[in-house]
Amino acid sequence: MAIAVNYRFPPGVDAEKQAKIIAIGQTVGTWDARFAHRQASLQAHLAVVVSVVTDSQGYSTATIHFPETNVENDIPSLLTMIFGKYSMAGAAKVVGLQLPENYGLRPKFGITGIRKLLGVFNRPLIMAIFKPALGLSATDHADIFRQVAEAGLDIIKDDEILGNLASAPTLERLKACRVIIEQVKQESDRTILYAVNVTGNATKLIENARELVRNGANALLLNVFSYGFSVLEALATDPEINVPIFTHPAGAGAISAAPDYGIDYSITLGTLMAYAGADAVLYPAHYGNLPFAAEDEAKIRDRLRMRGVMPVPSAGIHPGVVAKAVADYGEDVILNAGTGIMDHPDGAAAGVKAFFEALKYVENGESFSLDTLPLGALRSAIQKWGIYHS
Amino acid sequence: MAIAVNYRFPPGVDAEKQAKIIAIGQTVGTWDARFAHRQASLQAHLAVVVSVVTDSQGYSTATIHFPETNVENDIPSLLTMIFGKYSMAGAAKVVGLQLPENYGLRPKFGITGIRKLLGVFNRPLIMAIFKPALGLSATDHADIFRQVAEAGLDIIKDDEILGNLASAPTLERLKACRVIIEQVKQESDRTILYAVNVTGNATKLIENARELVRNGANALLLNVFSYGFSVLEALATDPEINVPIFTHPAGAGAISAAPDYGIDYSITLGTLMAYAGADAVLYPAHYGNLPFAAEDEAKIRDRLRMRGVMPVPSAGIHPGVVAKAVADYGEDVILNAGTGIMDHPDGAAAGVKAFFEALKYVENGESFSLDTLPLGALRSAIQKWGIYHS
Repeated sequence: MAIAVNYRFPPGVDAEKQAKIIAIGQTVGTWDARFAHRQASLQAHLAVVVSVVTDSQGYSTATIHFPETNVENDIPSLLTMIFGKYSMAGAAKVVGLQLPENYGLRPKFGITGIRKLLGVFNRPLIMAIFKPALGLSATDHADIFRQVAEAGLDIIKDDEILGNLASAPTLERLKACRVIIEQVKQESDRTILYAVNVTGNATKLIENARELVRNGANALLLNVFSYGFSVLEALATDPEINVPIFTHPAGAGAISAAPDYGIDYSITLGTLMAYAGADAVLYPAHYGNLPFAAEDEAKIRDRLRMRGVMPVPSAGIHPGVVAKAVADYGEDVILNAGTGIMDHPDGAAAGVKAFFEALKYVENGESFSLDTLPLGALRSAIQKWGIYHS
Repeated sequence: MAIAVNYRFPPGVDAEKQAKIIAIGQTVGTWDARFAHRQASLQAHLAVVVSVVTDSQGYSTATIHFPETNVENDIPSLLTMIFGKYSMAGAAKVVGLQLPENYGLRPKFGITGIRKLLGVFNRPLIMAIFKPALGLSATDHADIFRQVAEAGLDIIKDDEILGNLASAPTLERLKACRVIIEQVKQESDRTILYAVNVTGNATKLIENARELVRNGANALLLNVFSYGFSVLEALATDPEINVPIFTHPAGAGAISAAPDYGIDYSITLGTLMAYAGADAVLYPAHYGNLPFAAEDEAKIRDRLRMRGVMPVPSAGIHPGVVAKAVADYGEDVILNAGTGIMDHPDGAAAGVKAFFEALKYVENGESFSLDTLPLGALRSAIQKWGIYHS
């Protein structure tokens, strides 16, 4: 099966011509009589322009089929082929990508595997982010961890900004939090996942990840756009990395935010992640403080779920969005809140409790509002953040 | 010293407000009384808005200073900090980046080291690209290699599209070409560098690179935007990779081409490469077929040379641009031609000869034109491609 790519060109671009340039220039290039004896082999590597359609606004979309044999069954070689040199050729945006079913990787854990690790099967999962992002000690992290863990949190992650800093080295943060993970396990037989941010040059990052796993890390966090899809694929296929990999969208906007350049969010945060071995993928929720469209969010969700990958809508998530999020997502979602948990007026534990209170209402099919809520964590949260109405 | 970043916002954006969001949101975030005891530590990680200036068109540029202690002295953690989550926050482009002198890596080879390997010290270097890009066998590559090597070429590289394909596995291509490299060395004591494209997931790519070097690869090629800056940094610091690393700009346009989003070309292809350990950096020449501005090219050239990195203007390079390129670059440049060598009417060897003929004229301070050129490789090239006049 071919790799199908849709390129969208703004009005004024000769899309037919550009499509031919892509089909030839991003594969074999041209050849002359000297290579006549290789005709069949060269021809087999050429891409084919399947169609060019122009809409009423003058935007044209070209569909091009690339041979799967041109690439290495991974994301980096795919990116070089579909939008390598051509990315510098003028206004054009990659808006569609269809990969063969058997292309690339599948998550080792994904929705099913993460649920099994947590032993939670029938509700959305609640996830928090350590805040403030920088400047806390390993002990501070453990303190926060204890508060949210005791309140019933499922997953916590480092802020994506927090690397392996002298003030709180990654391994020390893990060791300090690991104590709480084990206490909670002993006391209540609950598992809490801590997605530890892995950083460094590719060799060091992979070595660090293995060391963290040996020291009890039960999940990892990777900034894929900063470190590279090749690093995600290395982690995802590493026999020693037997924990779920959470991916963060930091930097995705540099590639996806421009209307007429780059690669669509549904591809960078959806398709590519789903075929590169991510287990859970963070991306902006349209409820939140980033200017993200509901339809972009829905596309990402669907691309991820098609491969069994867990969607993690993020940024601006607070207890007041729970009802809407469950309506949009159903159960198979991780609701990931940073300040929406950590900045609860009564502290981080109350932040977690507010989420579970809100979930309870939703599960029971009951709506809630500031007028009807009893005093408690949820009411304080709603007082601060309001209820999201689409 | 701080890391200084310039963000440019289009008219209509509240730049003062956005600058504050960046300075806080891309570092510590906010905190409340609960963290009062950490005030000093938190404060030390905050970025500072130094200035916000609006020009006559309504574009505003904010200069923000980030503490160097927030990052890991590398490019990926820097990218996460300066344009991670914020890249998804709306129209904004990173247009300036000043790193401390001692930040990151320096090239192991760079201009000086590449010249030493080649034994060529006082002229621009000439580089070719294997074409057609896909569909040739290892033997075909060796045939091309022999032609251009005997004609006096300095460097050849794989097309960036060509990975480790079953039809011509990377190691086989190297071994076939290595025979010619050794013959030329024996016969004329000349060295020819072959920048072999390294691919695969990060672990495999680094292993493959080491294996290629053990098997005589004397240069490597990396598609940095497809594989990640963390991979470049891993190769550049690997004790076994004792050969120059050439970087290709494939994919750079996805990040840099949009006017009001992403990160400026002078940063992605200039500053970041120069601080990530690249020895020679390919980027579009403004003489060529990609819509690239002369001033962008000049900025990249200068950023690279400031760190001793070899500039490699590419795409649309042919013998008719040599005079202009030498005027723009002087001697410390690699002129990199794909079809400009391979598609010479009299074959690839004539393509190389045409470059050296052109260089000879320029060195002697003589101009040339179709009217005055004698029959030969250069005349045929000029007949086909013309002479570039700015």
